[in-house]
Amino acid sequence: MGLKFKPLADRVVVEPAAAETKTASGLYIPDSAKEKPQQGKVIAVGKGTKKHDMTVKTGDSVLYGKFSGTELKLDGKDYLIMREDEILGIL
Amino acid sequence: MGLKFKPLADRVVVEPAAAETKTASGLYIPDSAKEKPQQGKVIAVGKGTKKHDMTVKTGDSVLYGKFSGTELKLDGKDYLIMREDEILGIL
Amino acid sequence: MGLKFKPLADRVVVEPAAAETKTASGLYIPDSAKEKPQQGKVIAVGKGTKKHDMTVKTGDSVLYGKFSGTELKLDGKDYLIMREDEILGIL
Amino acid sequence: MGLKFKPLADRVVVEPAAAETKTASGLYIPDSAKEKPQQGKVIAVGKGTKKHDMTVKTGDSVLYGKFSGTELKLDGKDYLIMREDEILGIL
Amino acid sequence: MGLKFKPLADRVVVEPAAAETKTASGLYIPDSAKEKPQQGKVIAVGKGTKKHDMTVKTGDSVLYGKFSGTELKLDGKDYLIMREDEILGIL
Amino acid sequence: MGLKFKPLADRVVVEPAAAETKTASGLYIPDSAKEKPQQGKVIAVGKGTKKHDMTVKTGDSVLYGKFSGTELKLDGKDYLIMREDEILGIL
Amino acid sequence: MGLKFKPLADRVVVEPAAAETKTASGLYIPDSAKEKPQQGKVIAVGKGTKKHDMTVKTGDSVLYGKFSGTELKLDGKDYLIMREDEILGIL
Repeated sequence: MGLKFKPLADRVVVEPAAAETKTASGLYIPDSAKEKPQQGKVIAVGKGTKKHDMTVKTGDSVLYGKFSGTELKLDGKDYLIMREDEILGIL
Repeated sequence: MGLKFKPLADRVVVEPAAAETKTASGLYIPDSAKEKPQQGKVIAVGKGTKKHDMTVKTGDSVLYGKFSGTELKLDGKDYLIMREDEILGIL
Repeated sequence: MGLKFKPLADRVVVEPAAAETKTASGLYIPDSAKEKPQQGKVIAVGKGTKKHDMTVKTGDSVLYGKFSGTELKLDGKDYLIMREDEILGIL
Repeated sequence: MGLKFKPLADRVVVEPAAAETKTASGLYIPDSAKEKPQQGKVIAVGKGTKKHDMTVKTGDSVLYGKFSGTELKLDGKDYLIMREDEILGIL
Repeated sequence: MGLKFKPLADRVVVEPAAAETKTASGLYIPDSAKEKPQQGKVIAVGKGTKKHDMTVKTGDSVLYGKFSGTELKLDGKDYLIMREDEILGIL
Repeated sequence: MGLKFKPLADRVVVEPAAAETKTASGLYIPDSAKEKPQQGKVIAVGKGTKKHDMTVKTGDSVLYGKFSGTELKLDGKDYLIMREDEILGIL
Repeated sequence: MGLKFKPLADRVVVEPAAAETKTASGLYIPDSAKEKPQQGKVIAVGKGTKKHDMTVKTGDSVLYGKFSGTELKLDGKDYLIMREDEILGIL
């Protein structure tokens, strides 16, 4: 939460949820559905660009495609960094 | 209906209609026509983007291409999430 | 004519004319000319987009490329749905 | 000339000149130069688009690339329909 | 010079200089350097487009890439027609 | 720091950090994670373009993709030059 | 310097520096580093385009990618002509 990393442009840092979790909103991702969208929590949000205003906020639970983003290790924890347009929606 | 998921940008969540249904408006999709457009009901609509204002509304019955969208499971039910531009029209 | 289907964006629903017809304006499409433009009647017209204002109107007879559009069955009849830019012109 | 066909957008209907003609302006297209630009007369002109204002007028003699346009038969005569940008210039 | 051909849009008609000429400005194109830029004289200039204002004028000596343009025969002489952006500069 | 090189447009010169360093902010890049983002310090920043305003400043610690940028040797030291959009964020 | 050649649009004429030179600013390009950026001096600059304002000036020492530009011989000397965006920066 006190993450000091500031993503550039329209990028978002996401902390992936543990796999196979049945979340509060009832999302369930079975082990066999490897290409299904994944769930995570937004940790840091860029300022956007001239063409793209940001929508998600820090703390939002989001869904994103299985192959979205680039792995990133910060303070010893694993995150993903992706363009906001790779996020499908907010739970 | 009380779905809490908010699609980002120009995305739309659609609940696919059961296959081979003859709908109220008379649409009929035979079993052999696998690439024909599919019918579904709009469940959630994004806010649009600078380039794209949204047209469909929650509750609209829509047609979309057979291979449109990404599968999404929310509260145990199967949905599709797609860009509005993948929707062909409103029934 | 009383078709309730509303095409989205810059799409147009066209009812293809029967093949090999010699039309009122004299268009003749021989059986051997399979890649020649096809004739049809506009049944429904979308609202256009920020980049594209619509030109054709319901009832217009139009020509379009042989491979334009996607097949669509509404109320038991066969139609094509295509982007207006795939229509070559109005007869 | 009394052609009722209205090309859409930035399209132009051209009546190709007979091959191997030496025109009034002296253009000569030898039989062996199959990829050389072709000459024709403009028969109908679209209204243009938001991005493209039309330049050619009905009656203009124009040159266009050998492989430009799509064949079109109207009132029993052969024409070509092409985007104005495929026309190289006016003779 | 009294050429009646009007190139459309951002096109330019160029009369290629004879090969292996050492020009007034000292340009020398050896026979072996087949991919080196070529020299020619501007014969006719289009009006430009919404995105491109024209810079070259009739009579300018220009350099252009070896493979630029399309061959064009007008009044029995060989010319090239090309987009102005294919012209590297003015001698 | 007293580097006289001025990158053009939206380019940034970055001095790569030594590999396998655990930084003040706790970033740790293990030897086996060769495709993980890399860390570096911004040494020089271009003026941006009509489409892209610059965000990073000289002295910023940044992360960038493993294969970003082009190697550059200035005053005997190794740098990378890259488009700002290749920088993932600021530590 | 008294070069009469005017590059069109966003093009720049560069006189490549002799290879393996250690310049005043200390740039050193070893013989083995064939893909490293190259150094040269700006000899002539185009007027730019609607989308691109020019930054470099005649006399600037610049770096550019190994494979940038097209060879050009003017007044018996070898130059390169390239888009300004192919220039990495000013020394």
